[in-house]
Amino acid sequence: MADSASTSQPCVVLLSGGLDSATTLAIATREQFACHTLAFDYGQRHRHELDAAALVARSLNVASHRVVKIGGLTVTGPTGDQASASVFGGSALTSDIAVPKDRSQHHMTSDIPVTYVPARNLVFLALATALAESLGASDLFIGVNAVDYSGYPDCRPEFIRSFERTAVLATKAGVEGGTLRVHAPLVNLSKAEIIALGMRLGVDYALTHSCYDPVVRGDAVLACGRCDSCALRREGFIAAGVVDPTRYG
Amino acid sequence: MADSASTSQPCVVLLSGGLDSATTLAIATREQFACHTLAFDYGQRHRHELDAAALVARSLNVASHRVVKIGGLTVTGPTGDQASASVFGGSALTSDIAVPKDRSQHHMTSDIPVTYVPARNLVFLALATALAESLGASDLFIGVNAVDYSGYPDCRPEFIRSFERTAVLATKAGVEGGTLRVHAPLVNLSKAEIIALGMRLGVDYALTHSCYDPVVRGDAVLACGRCDSCALRREGFIAAGVVDPTRYG
Repeated sequence: MADSASTSQPCVVLLSGGLDSATTLAIATREQFACHTLAFDYGQRHRHELDAAALVARSLNVASHRVVKIGGLTVTGPTGDQASASVFGGSALTSDIAVPKDRSQHHMTSDIPVTYVPARNLVFLALATALAESLGASDLFIGVNAVDYSGYPDCRPEFIRSFERTAVLATKAGVEGGTLRVHAPLVNLSKAEIIALGMRLGVDYALTHSCYDPVVRGDAVLACGRCDSCALRREGFIAAGVVDPTRYG
Repeated sequence: MADSASTSQPCVVLLSGGLDSATTLAIATREQFACHTLAFDYGQRHRHELDAAALVARSLNVASHRVVKIGGLTVTGPTGDQASASVFGGSALTSDIAVPKDRSQHHMTSDIPVTYVPARNLVFLALATALAESLGASDLFIGVNAVDYSGYPDCRPEFIRSFERTAVLATKAGVEGGTLRVHAPLVNLSKAEIIALGMRLGVDYALTHSCYDPVVRGDAVLACGRCDSCALRREGFIAAGVVDPTRYG
């Protein structure tokens, strides 16, 4: 692995620990990149995904795995009062807002779900760009999907293409004539297609974590089976004809 | 102030504590926005700028001031070894690289200075966008300047315009037909013009901190007077015909 990594082109892969990003990492690995994975600790409520990201990174022999903490936000009001907060306010994934269950009416409509985290992929891709420039990498991978997540503005192909243009202009590449490519290989795949592809590439989906609202019992982290993310994942395994390795609570 | 703030449109102003961002905040204030300032603790070597940002924010009666910490980066190598690092590697402002003094040859050329921090403005604007969306703000202010900082890719007007398009696509605005405007009011001004404008708007430049390599003596933080940032600032005060309030070491 060390030899192939040293002769491969480096890339940065955003790795949340979920099914989509694990599959994206397997795709980047198959394309012979030396993969540097990047996860974020941004005050998300379901922090088990950070453990899952580390397990997935190790299982796919990455060149390095990083966790960036975004937080410690202090807010000072006009009267000098201080408080702590998340820069990503107003989402069910970072705030005390209930995670919807059992296919709430917003799902698969054009409405924006309450689990949308403001500008999250913009922030993650910006930090991935900074890391890529530091590592001398010209390729980023992100597991966004516009089929299942049509309500998330930052999962759309037009956002990815626009970000790519902006990131080139933001970095040395834009001055020195270099390139920066944002790969979103899952953008037009269904969940079943993603799972079928990942199985061919040897992804161990038992290591991945998708649930928005997991149940912890002793050492076990069990998926709720009812949030939108669980529902999409469960139906994906059924549609792909693959045994679902998820442990449900 | 509370009344005017409650009826004003909110905006997010990136505030580093330097001369340019302080002037930008004064401009946003003059435009009747309720200003929410945002500073970053990203492992920068000259951390006095965070104190300066808080002082400037208070002096201009902002609606709120936030400091976001970006860091706590842990890196795990292929053999499981762990290390800490900055996501913004490879810059004289975050790493152990000497800050150039006395107008090193790169300055004012098209070369990229060693004080360039990879993709920093991209990351800062992305986080400002997340905050703006949480606050219901459609306006961001950034004090980039393409005249004095021609070597920094992320200070160019074409980057700002491209970011604006990307940020709209990344957020609810892009789905719901809203707008997001990135104001860069200093982009085409000289340092002397910025200082003259700030003086008219009542900016107290004694509170601001620009030096890349300050000297600390007791409680005093003294500017080195010789780094590129000090040189630009010093010459700006002279050209504007304004007494320079900076304390030099």
